[in-house]
Amino acid sequence: MEKNELLYEGKAKRIYLTEKPDVLWVEYKDDATAFNGEKKDKIAGKSRLNNLITSQIFEALKEAGINNHFIEKLSDTEQLVQKVTIVPIEVVVRNVTAGSLANRLGMEEGIQLEAPIIEFYYKDDALGDPLINEDHIRLLKIATPEQLHVIRGIALRVNEFLLNLFKEVNVRLVDFKLEFGVNHEGEILLADEISPDTCRLWDIHTNQKFDKDLFRRNLGSLTEGYEEILTRLGGSSCTK
Amino acid sequence: MEKNELLYEGKAKRIYLTEKPDVLWVEYKDDATAFNGEKKDKIAGKSRLNNLITSQIFEALKEAGINNHFIEKLSDTEQLVQKVTIVPIEVVVRNVTAGSLANRLGMEEGIQLEAPIIEFYYKDDALGDPLINEDHIRLLKIATPEQLHVIRGIALRVNEFLLNLFKEVNVRLVDFKLEFGVNHEGEILLADEISPDTCRLWDIHTNQKFDKDLFRRNLGSLTEGYEEILTRLGGSSCTK
Repeated sequence: MEKNELLYEGKAKRIYLTEKPDVLWVEYKDDATAFNGEKKDKIAGKSRLNNLITSQIFEALKEAGINNHFIEKLSDTEQLVQKVTIVPIEVVVRNVTAGSLANRLGMEEGIQLEAPIIEFYYKDDALGDPLINEDHIRLLKIATPEQLHVIRGIALRVNEFLLNLFKEVNVRLVDFKLEFGVNHEGEILLADEISPDTCRLWDIHTNQKFDKDLFRRNLGSLTEGYEEILTRLGGSSCTK
Repeated sequence: MEKNELLYEGKAKRIYLTEKPDVLWVEYKDDATAFNGEKKDKIAGKSRLNNLITSQIFEALKEAGINNHFIEKLSDTEQLVQKVTIVPIEVVVRNVTAGSLANRLGMEEGIQLEAPIIEFYYKDDALGDPLINEDHIRLLKIATPEQLHVIRGIALRVNEFLLNLFKEVNVRLVDFKLEFGVNHEGEILLADEISPDTCRLWDIHTNQKFDKDLFRRNLGSLTEGYEEILTRLGGSSCTK
């Protein structure tokens, strides 16, 4: 596979075309951003950690029958994925109160939810990725009710899978963000990444944070936290 | 009926007990507030206009078979209502883009929607009445899924009714906010008020505003706008 021209550069990844029209080459970046880009830093090693963790999780999801865009890991910081048109909705699944949910509803962080909560955010940096409901999605025409139904179903299945995956390594899956795309066959596919950049992951006993809140809230070394997740998941580098 | 002790004072109304345990005495105030109380003023005549308009609309809703808390108008600024426990959800129905919807989704104001949009806001001043979804409502336990289904149904029926009512007097019903309560029999009842304080009402031809945006945005005399609505609806004072 050849890496051709740059298709898109986001906050955390560069996406390149390949010689295959349906295959994209993803290169993770060491850039860390938070609060809609207001807080920024370069953190050596972050690209490797997110690429390895995401690759491992998407592979495991596939094995569990949850289809997704992942094709294969190319290097410590690169992977191949199916080309999809991203649905501009950030799907957040929550098992424990934290972050914007706690703020929005005036609740403490760390309260275990009786059932998972799903939230949809409109993926639009200029608007600050606002919370939206299904009526807004219908108005914006960014997903059909049928697509949204599929997305909700996949999100709950991913949650079940990840809850178990992390529980086995003594990690509490607090919440996470998913993105979905539509492939050339019109199928809704789980896309983007699942990593400590997009999940809140706490030690199951101590509630120590191993996720991007380390960076957002200046709580300690981001790479140490992410490395802990990679190690617990039994992951390793291509080069090791 | 006797007006007994003050039960509750809100931004726009005082609620008194009566000798009947299930009946409350509502007194409208001349206070205008906006932006979660940040902008405040006293506007002579506002209490009369809102009481008369609300009384007329709730009466008409009853006649149309949409049950609600309204019992009777007592004076220009007072009315009797059934006692209900207010569900702390502000239900917003929208037919045209405006205000926070336009801001949230980055849309122009004044775009006619293909179908009405319903939004739920958590009625909590300290939190700034945040937008919430049905999962949040389940978590907060402020309404059961069945109650929410009933509330949504009534809101859409009220919208149909109001769209016609206002269209007949050349007024465009842009959006409005409803509140609901549960009476002693456990029945969900439309409550609170429906007035230019809680609706956006534009002239159907010129889009001239006759609602609280006059005050929020300093666009002109609030009472002139509200009086225009009362006149178009054929309303009149008790004392006239």
